[in-house]
Parts: sequence; C-alpha cells; structure tokens
Amino acid sequence: MTKSVVLLSGGMDSATVLAIAQQEQQDCYALSFDYGQRHSAELNAAREIAESAGVLEHRVINIDIGQLGGSALTDEAIDVPAAGSHGIPVTYVPARNTIFLSYALAWAEVLNADRIYNGVNAVDYSGYPDCRPEYVDAFQTMANLATKRGVEGDPIQILSPLIQLSKSDIVTLGSGLGVDYSLTVSCYSAAAGGEACGECDACDLRRKGFEDACLPDPTRYI
Amino acid sequence: MTKSVVLLSGGMDSATVLAIAQQEQQDCYALSFDYGQRHSAELNAAREIAESAGVLEHRVINIDIGQLGGSALTDEAIDVPAAGSHGIPVTYVPARNTIFLSYALAWAEVLNADRIYNGVNAVDYSGYPDCRPEYVDAFQTMANLATKRGVEGDPIQILSPLIQLSKSDIVTLGSGLGVDYSLTVSCYSAAAGGEACGECDACDLRRKGFEDACLPDPTRYI
Repeated sequence: MTKSVVLLSGGMDSATVLAIAQQEQQDCYALSFDYGQRHSAELNAAREIAESAGVLEHRVINIDIGQLGGSALTDEAIDVPAAGSHGIPVTYVPARNTIFLSYALAWAEVLNADRIYNGVNAVDYSGYPDCRPEYVDAFQTMANLATKRGVEGDPIQILSPLIQLSKSDIVTLGSGLGVDYSLTVSCYSAAAGGEACGECDACDLRRKGFEDACLPDPTRYI
Repeated sequence: MTKSVVLLSGGMDSATVLAIAQQEQQDCYALSFDYGQRHSAELNAAREIAESAGVLEHRVINIDIGQLGGSALTDEAIDVPAAGSHGIPVTYVPARNTIFLSYALAWAEVLNADRIYNGVNAVDYSGYPDCRPEYVDAFQTMANLATKRGVEGDPIQILSPLIQLSKSDIVTLGSGLGVDYSLTVSCYSAAAGGEACGECDACDLRRKGFEDACLPDPTRYI
C-alpha cells in the first residue's frame, strides 16, 4: 500500500476518483475545502463519502478564496445561471484548481505520499481553463520543480483518471466500483440537505450522465 | 498605470519588490498570508510596509497551512536551526510558494491585474526548491493555461525581479528606492515587537547583506 491524497469535493467525480484510488490499493487521505461556496451541502456530502469509504484521514481546510470574489459560486452578487451558457462560465472560480492542487501538494509532501488523485474532467466542463489536460500536465511539471520529492528524483504523481471521460462513462465506472451516488451533491444551488435545483448546468450534466449510462438516478430534487 | 498584485511577507525582499513595482508605475495590491508562522511579527511588519507605501489595498488571507505541519516555521515540534545548515532546510514549508502564487493568481484574475510581483530569490535561499528560476518559469506556464486571461492570449505576468540578486544587491537596490528596512522583519524567531534573534539563517543572511553593501543595518536585536 502506498499513500495518496485524494481531492474530495462531495460531487460525483471526486467520489468516483476516491473509489478508483482505493481499487488501486492506495491508503487514502481525503482533502476538501471550505471556500465560501454557496452549496455547503457539498462539504457535508464529502464528509459522508469519506466516512463511508473508510479513508485514513479527512481534512477540510478553510481557504477563504470567497473573499476574493469573482465567481457565482462564491459571490452572492453574481447569479448562478440556468443551463446552456457558453464560453467560460460565471461559475468559474479564479485559480480554484491551482489552489486545490497546491494544498494537495503540500499535504502530500508532509505525508510523504506518492500520488495525488483529482477529479478534473475536460469533457463536460470544457469551459473551465483549469480542467484541461495541458493544464494538469503543466501543474505536474511545476510541482516536480517545487518539491523536495521532485528535486530528489521521485516526484509526487498527479493523477486525473477522469480527465477524458464523459459524465456517463464516470457514472458507469463508479457504479461498477460500488460508489453510492446518493451521497454525492452536484447542484450549484443545492439546499442544506443536499436536494438539487434541477435547473443549473451541474444538475443538467448529472441528469444526462445517468440517462446516457442507463442507470437509475438517485438525485433528490427540491 | 496598470494593476499589480504584490506578495508582501514583511521581510526585506518583498518590501524591495513593492518599491520596484511602484517605481514601475504599478497600482499595487499587496497580499500577505497568515499561515500559522511562528514569526507573526512579520505580518505586523507587512501591514506597516503596506501602509507606508500607500498601496491601494492590503489583504491578509488566513491559509492555515500550519495545520499540515512539516516545517520548523509552522510546526512547534521542529526546532528552528542555527545558521550554517546544508541541503533543503527544515524551515522549508511544503509547497509554500506554490500556494502563495496561486492565491496571487486568483486575486489578479479577479482584479484584472496585469502582473504579479514576488520576492523569490535563488541566491541566498538556494536550498528551497521553489525559489529557483526554473520553478517560477514552470509556474508561469501553468498559470497561462489555468486562467481566463491566459486562454484569451493576454496572460498575467509573474515577475521575480530579485531572483538572481544577492542579499547585498537587494539592500543596495532597495536603499536607492527609499525602502525603510527598519520596518522589515527577517528573523525566523522574531519577538512580537520584531526584534531579531541574531542567530538563525535568516538573521545571518540579513546581517551579511548590510555588511557587504556597506550600509548601516537598522535591525533591532533581542
């Protein structure tokens, strides 16, 4: 068994990634962030998923990027749009994945973990610049130069096993690994109990994922 | 005037960088971090320097990397060493510069700033992997792929004007720009009022910097 840090948001993708890491015989340390996101139901979901998966440790770090503003997900002054927008969406949180991966890198160094698993996905969220394979590759190159492990020739590997999968591929893969998607929350405007709005981009993608995979959708709607 | 985010630690280097940015006609937004560092006198120094320089805004973000441990600067269980150690020092904070630059990138995106100035220096702190030019170059490449601005072909520039300068070069340059080094704190174990221990690596480098530059050293010792 080797150690891995797994970024866990409480959504479907990272729950699937955690199951993949465990299938790959990793001792998993789950890392979540409280960043002033509107949908705090996501963090409760992350806690339940981590507990249900039996990770060695689950940390929630308060990173306070909400105070910087600039996104509908953290700034009350910007409305969450209905599905179907184009370009880089207003739900884009500036530099979010860079900050998340940086913390994962710090924790991986301290734990002496060999891998960082993340749920970055280029297919359904192609409007986010920091979800593309070339971005993750560039982060890996930077991380190799930033860390003791990298300098010593044994870099921490950053794995994005979902990066080229569609939402229905992800649902199919995760269901095969026994992921309980009823614990996960995707909605940008979820209620405190995790019930979804059914109208935002994230709800739209999730619903289509289950439909295309021909699997029952356990999502609870408001 | 264009906008810039300036990373400001409260030490000599970042105080010098702020003066450089202002000389380069930048509207400066200073960014500091409370990360559980032992030497909190540094943050008080950052506030005084920011005020004295008249920046447009100074933010201190609580980033809580101290809870991850792994460094003598944030972990009470690890002693700060006396000067003269070799290799990557125990004062190395895992992924610190990566986290700092990531936040600067996020704020720069929100402000629509054109530049990020940082005090990374490869000469005196060559034991830290994330202080080398190849690291900063790799961060720039990653940042270009991570951000809206990068995707749209007008990337945020990351400037490290001190990267190849010695401590005495920095002191000479900053003194010429009117930096008041009596406001800055370098010591890893500074007292609450900013008085330096005179014995750690950081004190050693600072003292030699003033000596080599043949300039009076305004440091207050315990």
